[in-house]
Amino acid sequence: MVPTTSSTATTHDVLTLGETMWRLSPSLTQQRLEAATTLDIHVGGAESNTAIALARLGKRAAWWSRLPETPPGRHVAAFLRAQGVDVGGVRWGEGRLGTYYVEFGSVPRPTQVIYDRANSAASQMQPDDFDWERLSGARWLHLTGITPALSASCLGTVRRAIAEARQRSVPVSFDLNYRAKLWTPAQAAPVLDELAAQASMVIAAERDVKLLFHLSGKPDALLSNLHARWNQATVVLTHGAGGSTAFDGSLHHAPAVLVSSPIAIGAGDAFDAGLLDALLDGKSLPEALRQGNALAALKLTMPGDVALVTRLELDALLASAASGVLR
Amino acid sequence: MVPTTSSTATTHDVLTLGETMWRLSPSLTQQRLEAATTLDIHVGGAESNTAIALARLGKRAAWWSRLPETPPGRHVAAFLRAQGVDVGGVRWGEGRLGTYYVEFGSVPRPTQVIYDRANSAASQMQPDDFDWERLSGARWLHLTGITPALSASCLGTVRRAIAEARQRSVPVSFDLNYRAKLWTPAQAAPVLDELAAQASMVIAAERDVKLLFHLSGKPDALLSNLHARWNQATVVLTHGAGGSTAFDGSLHHAPAVLVSSPIAIGAGDAFDAGLLDALLDGKSLPEALRQGNALAALKLTMPGDVALVTRLELDALLASAASGVLR
Amino acid sequence: MVPTTSSTATTHDVLTLGETMWRLSPSLTQQRLEAATTLDIHVGGAESNTAIALARLGKRAAWWSRLPETPPGRHVAAFLRAQGVDVGGVRWGEGRLGTYYVEFGSVPRPTQVIYDRANSAASQMQPDDFDWERLSGARWLHLTGITPALSASCLGTVRRAIAEARQRSVPVSFDLNYRAKLWTPAQAAPVLDELAAQASMVIAAERDVKLLFHLSGKPDALLSNLHARWNQATVVLTHGAGGSTAFDGSLHHAPAVLVSSPIAIGAGDAFDAGLLDALLDGKSLPEALRQGNALAALKLTMPGDVALVTRLELDALLASAASGVLR
Amino acid sequence: MVPTTSSTATTHDVLTLGETMWRLSPSLTQQRLEAATTLDIHVGGAESNTAIALARLGKRAAWWSRLPETPPGRHVAAFLRAQGVDVGGVRWGEGRLGTYYVEFGSVPRPTQVIYDRANSAASQMQPDDFDWERLSGARWLHLTGITPALSASCLGTVRRAIAEARQRSVPVSFDLNYRAKLWTPAQAAPVLDELAAQASMVIAAERDVKLLFHLSGKPDALLSNLHARWNQATVVLTHGAGGSTAFDGSLHHAPAVLVSSPIAIGAGDAFDAGLLDALLDGKSLPEALRQGNALAALKLTMPGDVALVTRLELDALLASAASGVLR
Amino acid sequence: MVPTTSSTATTHDVLTLGETMWRLSPSLTQQRLEAATTLDIHVGGAESNTAIALARLGKRAAWWSRLPETPPGRHVAAFLRAQGVDVGGVRWGEGRLGTYYVEFGSVPRPTQVIYDRANSAASQMQPDDFDWERLSGARWLHLTGITPALSASCLGTVRRAIAEARQRSVPVSFDLNYRAKLWTPAQAAPVLDELAAQASMVIAAERDVKLLFHLSGKPDALLSNLHARWNQATVVLTHGAGGSTAFDGSLHHAPAVLVSSPIAIGAGDAFDAGLLDALLDGKSLPEALRQGNALAALKLTMPGDVALVTRLELDALLASAASGVLR
Amino acid sequence: MVPTTSSTATTHDVLTLGETMWRLSPSLTQQRLEAATTLDIHVGGAESNTAIALARLGKRAAWWSRLPETPPGRHVAAFLRAQGVDVGGVRWGEGRLGTYYVEFGSVPRPTQVIYDRANSAASQMQPDDFDWERLSGARWLHLTGITPALSASCLGTVRRAIAEARQRSVPVSFDLNYRAKLWTPAQAAPVLDELAAQASMVIAAERDVKLLFHLSGKPDALLSNLHARWNQATVVLTHGAGGSTAFDGSLHHAPAVLVSSPIAIGAGDAFDAGLLDALLDGKSLPEALRQGNALAALKLTMPGDVALVTRLELDALLASAASGVLR
Repeated sequence: MVPTTSSTATTHDVLTLGETMWRLSPSLTQQRLEAATTLDIHVGGAESNTAIALARLGKRAAWWSRLPETPPGRHVAAFLRAQGVDVGGVRWGEGRLGTYYVEFGSVPRPTQVIYDRANSAASQMQPDDFDWERLSGARWLHLTGITPALSASCLGTVRRAIAEARQRSVPVSFDLNYRAKLWTPAQAAPVLDELAAQASMVIAAERDVKLLFHLSGKPDALLSNLHARWNQATVVLTHGAGGSTAFDGSLHHAPAVLVSSPIAIGAGDAFDAGLLDALLDGKSLPEALRQGNALAALKLTMPGDVALVTRLELDALLASAASGVLR
Repeated sequence: MVPTTSSTATTHDVLTLGETMWRLSPSLTQQRLEAATTLDIHVGGAESNTAIALARLGKRAAWWSRLPETPPGRHVAAFLRAQGVDVGGVRWGEGRLGTYYVEFGSVPRPTQVIYDRANSAASQMQPDDFDWERLSGARWLHLTGITPALSASCLGTVRRAIAEARQRSVPVSFDLNYRAKLWTPAQAAPVLDELAAQASMVIAAERDVKLLFHLSGKPDALLSNLHARWNQATVVLTHGAGGSTAFDGSLHHAPAVLVSSPIAIGAGDAFDAGLLDALLDGKSLPEALRQGNALAALKLTMPGDVALVTRLELDALLASAASGVLR
Repeated sequence: MVPTTSSTATTHDVLTLGETMWRLSPSLTQQRLEAATTLDIHVGGAESNTAIALARLGKRAAWWSRLPETPPGRHVAAFLRAQGVDVGGVRWGEGRLGTYYVEFGSVPRPTQVIYDRANSAASQMQPDDFDWERLSGARWLHLTGITPALSASCLGTVRRAIAEARQRSVPVSFDLNYRAKLWTPAQAAPVLDELAAQASMVIAAERDVKLLFHLSGKPDALLSNLHARWNQATVVLTHGAGGSTAFDGSLHHAPAVLVSSPIAIGAGDAFDAGLLDALLDGKSLPEALRQGNALAALKLTMPGDVALVTRLELDALLASAASGVLR
Repeated sequence: MVPTTSSTATTHDVLTLGETMWRLSPSLTQQRLEAATTLDIHVGGAESNTAIALARLGKRAAWWSRLPETPPGRHVAAFLRAQGVDVGGVRWGEGRLGTYYVEFGSVPRPTQVIYDRANSAASQMQPDDFDWERLSGARWLHLTGITPALSASCLGTVRRAIAEARQRSVPVSFDLNYRAKLWTPAQAAPVLDELAAQASMVIAAERDVKLLFHLSGKPDALLSNLHARWNQATVVLTHGAGGSTAFDGSLHHAPAVLVSSPIAIGAGDAFDAGLLDALLDGKSLPEALRQGNALAALKLTMPGDVALVTRLELDALLASAASGVLR
Repeated sequence: MVPTTSSTATTHDVLTLGETMWRLSPSLTQQRLEAATTLDIHVGGAESNTAIALARLGKRAAWWSRLPETPPGRHVAAFLRAQGVDVGGVRWGEGRLGTYYVEFGSVPRPTQVIYDRANSAASQMQPDDFDWERLSGARWLHLTGITPALSASCLGTVRRAIAEARQRSVPVSFDLNYRAKLWTPAQAAPVLDELAAQASMVIAAERDVKLLFHLSGKPDALLSNLHARWNQATVVLTHGAGGSTAFDGSLHHAPAVLVSSPIAIGAGDAFDAGLLDALLDGKSLPEALRQGNALAALKLTMPGDVALVTRLELDALLASAASGVLR
Repeated sequence: MVPTTSSTATTHDVLTLGETMWRLSPSLTQQRLEAATTLDIHVGGAESNTAIALARLGKRAAWWSRLPETPPGRHVAAFLRAQGVDVGGVRWGEGRLGTYYVEFGSVPRPTQVIYDRANSAASQMQPDDFDWERLSGARWLHLTGITPALSASCLGTVRRAIAEARQRSVPVSFDLNYRAKLWTPAQAAPVLDELAAQASMVIAAERDVKLLFHLSGKPDALLSNLHARWNQATVVLTHGAGGSTAFDGSLHHAPAVLVSSPIAIGAGDAFDAGLLDALLDGKSLPEALRQGNALAALKLTMPGDVALVTRLELDALLASAASGVLR
């Protein structure tokens, strides 16, 4: 599916687009948001999280979006640039930066996410905002099911992106990333179904595909069902502590890496990065699943939304896991 | 025992009185107090913790005490008002705010509490400090065994409170709350015994009643023994991870809710609030135990002394526990 | 203008309504917002700032608004309750809490305010949201020119509030509070002019009335001009380091209190509180100006948006200023 | 007055005794104590502040007191030991560590000190607590007028200390250090007068001697008056920005060193240390005044109560001041 | 001297090279380093500070150095990338990141800098480390007198850089930046003299040229003297509060912008950036001095080493300064 | 091996020497060093960690080293003095303080240590730096295998220390403390072997002796093997969660104390302190192992490098462990 060597003509290994926000969390450990006096700023967005993790592993990653020309907007761009992501395609303009509050819980109190992202600059993204011609220089396009939930113009932009990529034979991965706080299953299902059917690879949480498409059964059956449903796209399912599985005609499974004190945010985006990085390097799908799981596990040990991991660290974890130390 | 509907004549659902302090803990996680350079301020007092949790659940709660007219004193009153507790009955005056230091440990190092509460304004509370006539407008009086340990005048105030409540047929709950740093078992036992015998409901930790009254045996036997000893008062025992039990003629038990990383302070006060809230709503004693356990569990996930919980969150936990997810 | 003694029938000394937000500022002194990693949370809103300062001075103050039923919304209500403001009239609902970022500068770098308040719950306030009958129990209504800038329904609410107050002969103070980031002078002038003309007292910064109404000249002339323009309303002008002046037929002036390191936010709201508190106590307008200036000066020494001042502290400053120590 | 070389028989250059406390201040700059959520811990006590500054300059300093055997008590002892003060004479025992809250203001809001030191372990100091024989090995005894204000037994201890020193011909310096929050001028004057009259050197703020002894007039007259009153003791007066003066038969004056942003706590104690250090080194009284002023100025640039200054830094400041750069 | 339009062939507006370090300062305001418990991390280096300020103003800036492949090394690169500086020419390798401690003082306590930079990776820079051919694509080379002080190989690298630039007719600016903690005037003078004589523009503090070259007299005479000494290079002198002057055949002067609370680090580097940015935009030397002064003033209001300033902010300050508001 | 009572002639119970550093760790829990903005300062060094723990338990402990006369150097000395360690033998001089960065991980991300200790003042320690005659007053000398790895002169100093101790019949304990970041097993093995053979007691981690000396097998065999190899020295092996074992002719074992959330730094040094303290008190080797394990466990609950434990706390843990509660 992916050319095993980078064509000399390409300028980017992965191009992605979406919304990135300030994530604000109480600075005091386990403090309730309601009682907070200080907030830590993190930068998070599904697609940019993936882009950063890829850039740190050496991939040429670009992220497109709309950002407001304000200190928070500049902060986000600086954060991505710092990690090596090309933000040259970002459209700067009016508006606000989307924010969201996360209050980390601990059993039995659930972690709570409160979005304050309506009417953000990013949600006003338009299909004509970007220079699609640049897709010709990209080896891969990565999209998620969050963007189409943000606004009609965002949905239009995602449709356009897929069409432009397909026209140029650029493979498209699509992570369903269903967000119950943005739309209902009934609203989301037809849209995500339509987009997934045009992707070359679809990634989703098992529980989401069951909820959205009223499916049940074991992963094996789910995978082959979805593979057929989405025009033979490679389908990847994540199962939390159950690891990940994939179907590309054959069935593959990789176990999860045990994490002692998970900071449960951004793991799926790191998984996507680990997966894509491996595939872009010409590795096999099972190897890619294993790398996705490993990168997700490392992310879960860090307070931010992003896997700040080096190739060396990732390889070391994979090696130790391979040797049977980790399970 | 509790009228199932709030009489139109009442002004408060629960009235309580006691001492509330500044709790000072090292800001740096797991730091020893001896090596601290910064302290976090929390506000804590058994009775006000209960009052706050009740107020957040919608009960009209009032807290009486003596507070010094100083920044720390005003800080405490502001904290209670913020959470909806009526502090209009507080007596303002001279003196110091009691403080206490808590150094959180982790196995095998025990958490250490260092009281600096002697001669506080609250310890100088007098029986004549309060307008007992207001008790006529209260549906419930809640007291604890900490107050009588503070001073002779505090003991006198508690005796007076119980007498005034009984005279008006206001039910009285009494949480023994034995504090080994304030008095010995030999000092405490006769006083707590005397007061418990006048309450309509007595709440205690199993280990405390065993220690104080030289009892042993299983909860069932303890409960019926104490029920008889204390003039047929409803008796509630807490057993830590063993949940809680009660006897009001019949025996009831509710299992504890599992907490992954408990911050072990204030759980008993939250339990009392959950219990009283349910009883005031006309729920059954077993339901009240379950709600007490759930609120205590939620408190244990928070850094302060108080259960900053909404009705929605409490109900959600009870629902999930009921459905078997939590155990 | 104000009855010198509180009628036994009144329930509130001052009622006010408006929007209150989270103000987020970099925790590190002088840090740029763009480079911040941690934000301090403050609660600020022109009207609630005034209400809090009044409540701390012993006035029965109420604040009406719309707040979202979220942790940030509850945080705001708790902050006001803590300081003694009655928030029982707040309408709880859907939506977001308005926020704004403040980056404090120092010469020659100006302090920068970035609003993120569009589409807040408060901006969706409706004229029918409140029980106007309660105005009958209020001695005073205080409004500002910020609220009408927020939305058409907010403007409608302000119009309704003035009408309801006039109908009940409740005096109305109106602080123009022109905010250039919310509307242009051309948009604001007719609206503020209309509202000012119905108030019994209008408060404004000298520079704002000049800008809005294309006026020039010395304060004396400005004041009598505006007094005439606004149907004989008492007019109060603030002049920053030049103190404040007023005209109620006679001309009054009070010098500013010197502040060594001003934290330039919320001073005008504190001025309003000091002024109203004095007038409600039956003091003369010159005395009220002096108290307004003093409370504003004290606010400028504090990091938040609010004058956390006691009556004792305010009186001490006025006494020292009277004795010539301060100038 | 002081032997110019240290006798080989001496074990300490300066011995002092008094109370040392935890000083707790809001961590957030300019925050009101009432609104604080975090407190910085500093260690402060007039006598130990002086002892620390002396130890840092190379003098063998010892501090005697009572400390509680608790984490706060150990924290204080560790702080002094860290800076080289001998705490071997401290009596460890029961009780609480005195604390005090400091809320730093800025013009026009005054800095506020709230003592919470009643019934501290130190206030229970007894004349027999210490091994007075050790005074034989000391070159100097330094006392302040705070200790006699703490309790009758503290006063007794100070009387005993002076008597023991005089018996051994050890010079005694006595800093009046009048604290209005501990006693009234009427209570303090006779006690301080009695003690000053037995000292070889008395240090005081000009405003205090005027207030206590109903004196007025210029420093020159004050000094010679007090010199006579106190049996020819060397008298040193501090005048804030007016520098310091002294009279030992001749009159001496040293100007203050300008401080741009003074943190106004502990300056007097640092002055004492600079003065004593110079005298113990055999320098002249004018030189000692200059060094006292310089050390006080350096203290005023630091957040804690203590002059954390090296000999090199002190000499550099004195050199630059001498060269006319500082004034 | 500078081509007024950017040649289409150029890839960078300014290329610079040097050492960048972690600057560690006590987190608590005015705290002594000796008593610190927490340190804030800033990234600072004369040349990278200039590069960052230029990149933020829209110039294509590149920075070359050696960085260790460690977390601190990656942190530095990320910081530069975040601000838009091209770090593609950095050589990654073994070794340590240079660090330095800064303890901010306040009058009369001087700010203290403690270098811990010996044997850093950067100090092991070699003339052959870089691809000098890339200089052909640069419009300007900027160097400072810090680098030659670091090691013999660093001096060799600077010599090589100048030679390579001259060979390609790339203008070279050289900021003497004499650091007394790195070498003595006697060591520095011949080296700096040699390098300055090959530059097209030399920038220096007035006090440094006087100290190094045993000069005295007024700026005018100094400037023409140095202009002659250094082969007609444009000479720019900075005079702190006295502003800056320059001589390029004619004499120019620009006054400093008043700064109320300067954070005295990195101002010279910001000055260089403001100067170069203007010259690269084809502005006159007097305009460039004014812009340098303005950018330096803005830097002095920020806690880090770098001028985090936007073009809009810089222009606003220049406009207000031009209109006479600032002086 | 140890005289059971302290000879009146001794001045120190334990003398040790080595390098102590600043340990810098991200302040934000679990934060990556690469992304840190603030660092917590801790003071750590194997030998001084042991000395501090011993001093806190009442032993007279002295620590020798070289420290730079800088704020970081003084900070280290103050930290040791605070805890009661005699630093009078430290040699003050030029140079830098060694530092090291610790980034705490959590499974599966390993904790990472980055040394920046090359060329530290301590690494320049010379055999003639110390007054070896003072060893005559010491009851015990404690050394580790870190010091010989720092430099040739450090190795020389360790050799000299052992020789001087042996000459005076002072028992020597030697903790191998192999540090893979300082030297390879091939480099370390002969040196450590040589030094161990001269010690009266050798302490090592089981995994280190296996790695260094190519040994394998069960602890029992290892111990008797090493006992023979090192001239009948008492040999103590630590096994992490497996507790500790020792052989002094007989074989002893003590189980580890369970630690719930270990902060894995400094445990070995605390073990050494617990062991030596017991032996110096004349306790048996099995008792000493138990005390070492207990002190190590307590250390693991604290954020710094040092066991800040009181005798009371240690005894309480030993008592509870003895009673079977802990295992």
